[in-house]
Amino acid sequence: MYHLHDFASSGNGYKVRLLLTQLGHVYRYTQHNLLAGATHTRDFLEINPNGKIPVLITPEGKALSESNAILCFLAEGTAFMPDDSWERAQTLQWLFWEQYSHEPFIATSRFWMHLCDPTDFRDKLADRRPGGLKALKIMDDHLSRAAFFVADRYTIADIALYAYTHVAGEGGFSLDDYPNIENWLQRVRQQQGHITINDLPKS
Amino acid sequence: MYHLHDFASSGNGYKVRLLLTQLGHVYRYTQHNLLAGATHTRDFLEINPNGKIPVLITPEGKALSESNAILCFLAEGTAFMPDDSWERAQTLQWLFWEQYSHEPFIATSRFWMHLCDPTDFRDKLADRRPGGLKALKIMDDHLSRAAFFVADRYTIADIALYAYTHVAGEGGFSLDDYPNIENWLQRVRQQQGHITINDLPKS
Repeated sequence: MYHLHDFASSGNGYKVRLLLTQLGHVYRYTQHNLLAGATHTRDFLEINPNGKIPVLITPEGKALSESNAILCFLAEGTAFMPDDSWERAQTLQWLFWEQYSHEPFIATSRFWMHLCDPTDFRDKLADRRPGGLKALKIMDDHLSRAAFFVADRYTIADIALYAYTHVAGEGGFSLDDYPNIENWLQRVRQQQGHITINDLPKS
Repeated sequence: MYHLHDFASSGNGYKVRLLLTQLGHVYRYTQHNLLAGATHTRDFLEINPNGKIPVLITPEGKALSESNAILCFLAEGTAFMPDDSWERAQTLQWLFWEQYSHEPFIATSRFWMHLCDPTDFRDKLADRRPGGLKALKIMDDHLSRAAFFVADRYTIADIALYAYTHVAGEGGFSLDDYPNIENWLQRVRQQQGHITINDLPKS
């Protein structure tokens, strides 16, 4: 059985919860309160020296970190990862883009506004705003020409991008001006086995 | 023939140049001076709406961005990307780690110190320093137990991490305290077909 080390509010963790559920995996679940330093204990650093959730432990006891690497690992050989080499390349392009050009702006702003005291982060929030707006524009433009990010169907590229985009409002990014994103969010929610970020397995 | 859109000083571009060379590909090469806004022209945004190099154009004329996605695409089916599913997962783990937990600290600091006027970025450089030191410590610890990042041999994980680590000094990060990194840099330089960041193809 897989074992997921996670923190409930994390969109990076939600990506993995969503895919595990849609793949039909039953898994063990442990939460670590990263706001209280639980991902920097000696025990946690043994499974991820980078001190971050999510970490997936395989049935053989091996630890894998980086949410998008976990998505690729779990999706390999399933409908959630394309077989075609060019579609795989595009999937990875969007996954890397998500981590470099989307998450540091939208997810980080949400973290400061939603889980911390935003008055402590006023300057940083202003600093991250243009990058977040740019990311949403790129997504909306892409989705004006395609129903999903890659291969005209729901893949891990959609899972990775849905995780923080659907809660962008919690980071101060309204989606009102991005109708193509809004429609795509609906399509993602309609996928078989969809769970919300608040649907947690038993610990 | 592949066509690489690049900027000579970029470590992200160097990753792709290094792998293309080690794979024996002859390729067309075009530089874009990003300091002068050349990656934000209408023509460039057609091939990458994110306005960043590197972009690889395939012989069929399709455009792929995100340096580490390009590495995966080119390496697939070669010795530079493992076949084993767990080794592939670890390769991707390091590639995502590089983009989220290494590049924004070490490469960005190098950009400000090496290609801009560092006095304009004094506060930002101080802000990025702890993340860079943490990344180097994680690499050095890993390399105290392994000759390469994954699978006991040279893969795209090493290429991705070499690109900005070997010029970390240009971002103010001395490697003197990281002997395992220094030894690994030597091993990477000894790989067949190695080129330096300054070895550019003809445009």
